Amino acid sequence: MSAGSAAVAPPSAGRGLFITLEGGDGSGKSTQARLLEEWLVEHGRSVLRTREPGGTEVGVEIREIVLHHRGDIAPRAEALLYAADRAHHIATKVRPALERGDVVIQDRYLDSSVAYQGAGRVLGGTEVRDLSLWAAQGLLPDLTILLDLDETVARGRLDAAQKRFDRLEAEAGEFHARVRHAFLELAAAEPERFLVVDATGSVDEIAASVRERVEALLG
Amino acid sequence: MSAGSAAVAPPSAGRGLFITLEGGDGSGKSTQARLLEEWLVEHGRSVLRTREPGGTEVGVEIREIVLHHRGDIAPRAEALLYAADRAHHIATKVRPALERGDVVIQDRYLDSSVAYQGAGRVLGGTEVRDLSLWAAQGLLPDLTILLDLDETVARGRLDAAQKRFDRLEAEAGEFHARVRHAFLELAAAEPERFLVVDATGSVDEIAASVRERVEALLG
Repeated sequence: MSAGSAAVAPPSAGRGLFITLEGGDGSGKSTQARLLEEWLVEHGRSVLRTREPGGTEVGVEIREIVLHHRGDIAPRAEALLYAADRAHHIATKVRPALERGDVVIQDRYLDSSVAYQGAGRVLGGTEVRDLSLWAAQGLLPDLTILLDLDETVARGRLDAAQKRFDRLEAEAGEFHARVRHAFLELAAAEPERFLVVDATGSVDEIAASVRERVEALLG
Repeated sequence: MSAGSAAVAPPSAGRGLFITLEGGDGSGKSTQARLLEEWLVEHGRSVLRTREPGGTEVGVEIREIVLHHRGDIAPRAEALLYAADRAHHIATKVRPALERGDVVIQDRYLDSSVAYQGAGRVLGGTEVRDLSLWAAQGLLPDLTILLDLDETVARGRLDAAQKRFDRLEAEAGEFHARVRHAFLELAAAEPERFLVVDATGSVDEIAASVRERVEALLG
């Protein structure tokens, strides 16, 4: 299909669309979020593009603690800090946008918490998910786009970009492999919510797959 | 009794004593914590005197967000930030001290969360308590000393001391009355854990009541 010329329904009254992007660092979430936003805006939709952690002023302060504190943070404390960021972000930015009828495009949400902290660390996935849902008062995305990428490819991309690694990015490759596996399990458990995309595809191919699914939801 | 000359049992092997002080600002928690620490140290006990929020480096950063952020923080985010502080503090300071056999004297713990956020704000007491217990992996104090004070008396003390009011202290008097009521309800529900002390008594009278109860626990 030629997604650029496809019809997009007008904003619904009172209830927008909540789209999250998930996947490891280097999988292309930011690029796809930007392309999706541009396409939606061209078609007359109001869009909030945002992220977790750090999507609010409070969240920036929390993100600073989580990512750059010197020394270890207890695993439950880390999970609770991410949940606090989420609670404030969802209550003060995402819900108001959805109530206005906007499309919210969000870089990382509860699936990242489950994959990174639950499967990747010492806490159980179910308790991390429960904590997130308590924080967000039960809000689940209408669509979650998982940009799936082998972790060695992702690492090569990040190395090539010479990005500064933060505390999480500096963890070992085996950790990232467990995270990828956790994301794929989450997608398999909720196929109606997830769109899994092979992130080794071209930017345009991936963008077209994303638009096709979003269009169906808006139509 | 003359508590100053009373016998105190030697440190138990491997398991200390966890004592928390609760009550409104101006009720004398800090004074009583100091006197109890002095008495225990005189009698050969190792003591960790600490507090929440802000009992660790991470906690100081969190406390800064909670108490001094400009603008509102969503209620669940506030509860989660306190819980994050608690999780890190209990895991990295309190549990290791208890495992060494120390007496931990802590200014505020989960009862403050329940009283201030649960009863005083928009969240239910049970969910705030559950959150705290998840954060602390179920750790409850051996003894909780509630310094009970009418809120108008407490306010008079704070005014006299010309202390700078933080965001919570600046809330209305009616809020503090609800908090006091919530503390008393918590104490009534767990009489074996709580010692409720009339905080209008003299410093020495209160200290003697506290020592008597602690002595019984150590004996």
